[in-house]
Amino acid sequence: MTYPIVGMVGGGQLARMTQQAAIPLGVRLRVLAAAPEESAAQVVGDVFLGDEADLEDLRAFARGCDVLTFDHEHVPTGHLRALEADGTKVRPGPDALVHAQDKGVMREKLAAIGVPCPRNRIVADPADVAAFADEVGGWPVVLKTVRGGYDGKGVWVVRDAAQAEVPFQAGVPVLAEEKVDFARELAACVVRSPHGQAVAYPVVESVQVDGICHEVIAPAPDLSEERATEAQRIALTIAGELGVTGHLAVELFETRDGRILVNELAMRPHNSGHWTIDGAVTSQFENHLRAVLDLPLGDPRARAKWTVMVNVLGGDYPDMYHAYLHVMARDPGVKVHMYGKDVKPGRKVGHVTVCGDDLDDVRERAGHAAAYLRGSITE
Amino acid sequence: MTYPIVGMVGGGQLARMTQQAAIPLGVRLRVLAAAPEESAAQVVGDVFLGDEADLEDLRAFARGCDVLTFDHEHVPTGHLRALEADGTKVRPGPDALVHAQDKGVMREKLAAIGVPCPRNRIVADPADVAAFADEVGGWPVVLKTVRGGYDGKGVWVVRDAAQAEVPFQAGVPVLAEEKVDFARELAACVVRSPHGQAVAYPVVESVQVDGICHEVIAPAPDLSEERATEAQRIALTIAGELGVTGHLAVELFETRDGRILVNELAMRPHNSGHWTIDGAVTSQFENHLRAVLDLPLGDPRARAKWTVMVNVLGGDYPDMYHAYLHVMARDPGVKVHMYGKDVKPGRKVGHVTVCGDDLDDVRERAGHAAAYLRGSITE
Repeated sequence: MTYPIVGMVGGGQLARMTQQAAIPLGVRLRVLAAAPEESAAQVVGDVFLGDEADLEDLRAFARGCDVLTFDHEHVPTGHLRALEADGTKVRPGPDALVHAQDKGVMREKLAAIGVPCPRNRIVADPADVAAFADEVGGWPVVLKTVRGGYDGKGVWVVRDAAQAEVPFQAGVPVLAEEKVDFARELAACVVRSPHGQAVAYPVVESVQVDGICHEVIAPAPDLSEERATEAQRIALTIAGELGVTGHLAVELFETRDGRILVNELAMRPHNSGHWTIDGAVTSQFENHLRAVLDLPLGDPRARAKWTVMVNVLGGDYPDMYHAYLHVMARDPGVKVHMYGKDVKPGRKVGHVTVCGDDLDDVRERAGHAAAYLRGSITE
Repeated sequence: MTYPIVGMVGGGQLARMTQQAAIPLGVRLRVLAAAPEESAAQVVGDVFLGDEADLEDLRAFARGCDVLTFDHEHVPTGHLRALEADGTKVRPGPDALVHAQDKGVMREKLAAIGVPCPRNRIVADPADVAAFADEVGGWPVVLKTVRGGYDGKGVWVVRDAAQAEVPFQAGVPVLAEEKVDFARELAACVVRSPHGQAVAYPVVESVQVDGICHEVIAPAPDLSEERATEAQRIALTIAGELGVTGHLAVELFETRDGRILVNELAMRPHNSGHWTIDGAVTSQFENHLRAVLDLPLGDPRARAKWTVMVNVLGGDYPDMYHAYLHVMARDPGVKVHMYGKDVKPGRKVGHVTVCGDDLDDVRERAGHAAAYLRGSITE
């Protein structure tokens, strides 16, 4: 057997879906998980139980892996540097990954390479936030802890100095950003190999509800070719300038006055790319694996006119499997993706995808299936 | 967790590809393998090492599984009946599966339900084969052991009574069949659930080399709609009359005088359906799982005008991974599927699939990728 072993740190759904892509490639996926019941640990033969924050666990996990990659951004930068010093291939490497871990570092770098962002700066205290509000034309202001946020956590929209006190309580540096008057949110996903080859997926529209991705439409409807190309160029520039290897998701605001601004970065497979499993010639998961192995990248083009992905959140009913009967009988074309996670209200436990020629029809079908699985509709 | 556990007997590539389909469904796949390095055992978390011919091993494996299914037809019928008597759901059940295990039983049943087959009968010895040759218009005659054959093994084309001696040496009953003057081989694949729902995949052309499937073209080129519907109807009739649950592949001859005759049956995912992973809305593996779980079946329709699958056989070079560099760089649209098997000359170790609008282009690309991986071409 001459096939490589890819070690993925993290046992969540991204590692689980990466296993789907690893199987046909013949690549062995080894997962570092905290517990055997984690999403990916259920479906991978080679599970290493350990603590991703413990350098010795990471070292033991990396032994025998040809390359290390990640299903999240939580591994401390210092540990990644130590692994590299050991001779382990870490992709993306710590110099790139820090931009997805620290929003302050990310904003500074994007400004330096000329990528358009919301106005922002690190703020010292609530009074400094008030000063920032004056600088950008008034409240509200967005505050973010520079590390540790995701899915709406670690992010606050504040309307006065009193409200601005909470974010400072964690003792982590706080970044202030202008509240962008956006028309919608887009995502530009690209994949880059160590060799420097890169591919860009079609730009998608991402519909958020309560700070959590609800729906992704590929491609973004009514997006001009110029705007789409600009978004892809921004993502490719970031990937190249930051030295990203693997999948990079760039979450974007499209403003009401016609500008594209960078919101967030993720250097791993990302929710805005789940549609590619069913909707693209090469999924984000396969291309992430190909990139970290420095294999030539696969065709990122869409396979259907429209692909819509809707996340399935946990509802009040713990048994989603029973809902398969209705969902599958109603629509033989819906693709169900479950993550093997216990259902908790509001928790992302899966997604559904529908491809087709008629956008309204595709959205209705995907939305219905997700809502029925959650239990928020009953017919 | 309320998701079911499907136990698949056999650790080959069919179980491996079933795991790819089980992951998004949230269904747990448990595999009975003979050794941990078997194809499926590499990629499944829940591997039971045992002997599929040992009833107590089968019983221990079945404990905790919601349903039992198969990646091959080798489990003795008596064992399956014993498992059913224990209360285990066995799908397909022994009464159906025997028709895929015993070619004599299969021919008798197909005659009884009026499905067209090559002329055939059980023969007692070489002299009886000569008598059969007279009955069907002369030599050559095809001889098959009623049990145990696959991929050209257990099948002989004999031109006289002297050549007819070898098949009888195994001590297994021998079936004689007329040598059909076929124009080409087709396959009609259907999936049927215990509930009685059934879906039919597009009829494909299967190109064999030395008795082994080399290439599958979906849909079969230049097949009239009438002929295609007839082939699907034959497969659906067999599935219904034999009480098949799960995937049924019906290998067919299209004769030069315009008839469709049944060659072989397989009651499991089958090589003639591998194209569905990339080329159909619902793969044969997903629909097999849905069927054995009695879930509503998924849309079997093709996603592209043409899909071509070519098997990758082992060649002289043991390192196929190295060939990925050229294959993937030459063609970003080719889908590689490797089975994690050691390369041995002539052994099926993977397949490649290409989808597209131009059949000549799609065939060239798939054929090139498979030949390069094998090492039979070097550029």
